[in-house]
Amino acid sequence: MCESNAYLKDGNNEVMIMESVDTIEPSENGLRLMDIFGKQIFIRAKIKDMTLLNHRIILEELPLDNL
Amino acid sequence: MCESNAYLKDGNNEVMIMESVDTIEPSENGLRLMDIFGKQIFIRAKIKDMTLLNHRIILEELPLDNL
Repeated sequence: MCESNAYLKDGNNEVMIMESVDTIEPSENGLRLMDIFGKQIFIRAKIKDMTLLNHRIILEELPLDNL
Repeated sequence: MCESNAYLKDGNNEVMIMESVDTIEPSENGLRLMDIFGKQIFIRAKIKDMTLLNHRIILEELPLDNL
């Protein structure tokens, strides 16, 4: 399966916030993620980088002045 | 293999601009894409949406006032 896991950068750590992500939809204020089971979350973050072969999507919280 | 193809939206069409994308790195002015062979391109675009299970990354050109 080709889904990826999404991690939120927290300083030097990366906290997994969603497993088996299928869909990613950026919007003005963040990202909508949906996993392969149809579960959705919205997070005030942007994509920092992603490597699909490693199944890793790294997210970064948006600064508050982006609200 | 879990790479995806990247398509640029052009009106109602989607033009494939890179096959077998592994890495995506957003920056201020666009995206750096790297395929599984190490070839890199930079494109003045943002991610519109992506569905990993379908191996599709849809990009949208950035408006000129984002320069």
